Amino acid sequence: MEDQLQGAVVIERRAAQGPFVFVCEHAVNAFPAPWGDLGLSSEVQSAHVAWDPGALGLARGLAERLDAPLVRATTSRLIYDLNRPPQSPGAMPARSEIFDIPGNAALDPAQRLTRTQALYLPFHAQLRTLLAEKLALGQRPILVTVHSFTPVYHGRPRAVELGIIHDADPSLACAVLEEARAQTPLDARLNDPYSAADEVTHTLALHATPMGLRNVMLELRNDLIADALAQAAMAARLAPVLLAALARLDKPLEVV
Amino acid sequence: MEDQLQGAVVIERRAAQGPFVFVCEHAVNAFPAPWGDLGLSSEVQSAHVAWDPGALGLARGLAERLDAPLVRATTSRLIYDLNRPPQSPGAMPARSEIFDIPGNAALDPAQRLTRTQALYLPFHAQLRTLLAEKLALGQRPILVTVHSFTPVYHGRPRAVELGIIHDADPSLACAVLEEARAQTPLDARLNDPYSAADEVTHTLALHATPMGLRNVMLELRNDLIADALAQAAMAARLAPVLLAALARLDKPLEVV
Repeated sequence: MEDQLQGAVVIERRAAQGPFVFVCEHAVNAFPAPWGDLGLSSEVQSAHVAWDPGALGLARGLAERLDAPLVRATTSRLIYDLNRPPQSPGAMPARSEIFDIPGNAALDPAQRLTRTQALYLPFHAQLRTLLAEKLALGQRPILVTVHSFTPVYHGRPRAVELGIIHDADPSLACAVLEEARAQTPLDARLNDPYSAADEVTHTLALHATPMGLRNVMLELRNDLIADALAQAAMAARLAPVLLAALARLDKPLEVV
Repeated sequence: MEDQLQGAVVIERRAAQGPFVFVCEHAVNAFPAPWGDLGLSSEVQSAHVAWDPGALGLARGLAERLDAPLVRATTSRLIYDLNRPPQSPGAMPARSEIFDIPGNAALDPAQRLTRTQALYLPFHAQLRTLLAEKLALGQRPILVTVHSFTPVYHGRPRAVELGIIHDADPSLACAVLEEARAQTPLDARLNDPYSAADEVTHTLALHATPMGLRNVMLELRNDLIADALAQAAMAARLAPVLLAALARLDKPLEVV
């Protein structure tokens, strides 16, 4: 694995030549210096509000199977949520679901600027560079962001198992939905439990939509990818879904 | 003037605090090393295919009057057209209007990659950084790109004098159109002589649309801004147009 460690971002398998590029903005629940633990208990630090449990393992499994680069975060989303623009209250949230985030309660503009410069800008600059280099070389990368969601939110259980979310262009998301339903027993749904209206497609809107790149966001219910074995099994299940969805779009005579 | 010289991009008045940020992607007809003159005659090097004559002077005049930063190119658009993504044939065109561009006739992928890395990526990274910093500080910058077009194109004269072009959100463009018609004698038109369908809104699509920033592209017929005096006069004319358009959008009770 060729890693490029650059502080706010790690790109695994950077030179991989498959058609997909995977992104995992909520990969880890790390609270390194200088940010620290934001005053959170260890319980909250390991809860789903701090990261997307299982998403990194799934994204790695997909990237390996599909010979793809994986661009991933190195710090908790509670320090900076890389899937939100700097002006969003959710970028450095003072509260997330049922938890107060003490270290974000009274951020001043200078502190917001520091986190934006240290985390948001380098993450997205590295992703932009990776995609632009492929485009300059005549490739047309497909952007897939990988997330997980909690089975119980604000006390209510969620039935959806695989959420497939799109930004402006729904074509790949619709094809993935059809293939997921055809190939797997998962309860797969479009724009559920989130959609672009919830601000969750920022990475897609920033990198795929203006470049005309095919893109989709995958949201797995995290109880289905709770350990390495389950993550590997889900990657084995979803890699052919992605490939078949892509083949569907690339069929001749089909308007996409 | 506080300039930041960083190779592919110059940011003039970077610390300026007005609401607008101006961009001039086709500011100059410079052909510096290592790119050289692409085999072009000095006549073609000074023609409108190599840059947007008058646009930089106009953009500077607007930036000074409106206390705004100006992000501008340092090389000819024929080396890399910063208002085009790397996969666009127009990014490093082999032909532009009636002129062949010998130095772009047989670019291989490695050469396209080199220009993308040296020119496109740093230009847009610097612009992204400037905008994201303002957003982190609680400001909501308004992006204005400044261009010029030739009075005669493929042998046909153009009547339009001021083109006002929008990307996904037409609100500021429409307000500028109304104010330009009310305040000036210019033949002002919406999405003329170009529109987003001609790929001319790449900078807006990359930086304004995904961030929800108000934005507009101004295209002046270049015979109207042919020298410094005319550029200053046009800036004096258009600065109040932009301010009035913005005030129109900021009116309470108006849905924007």
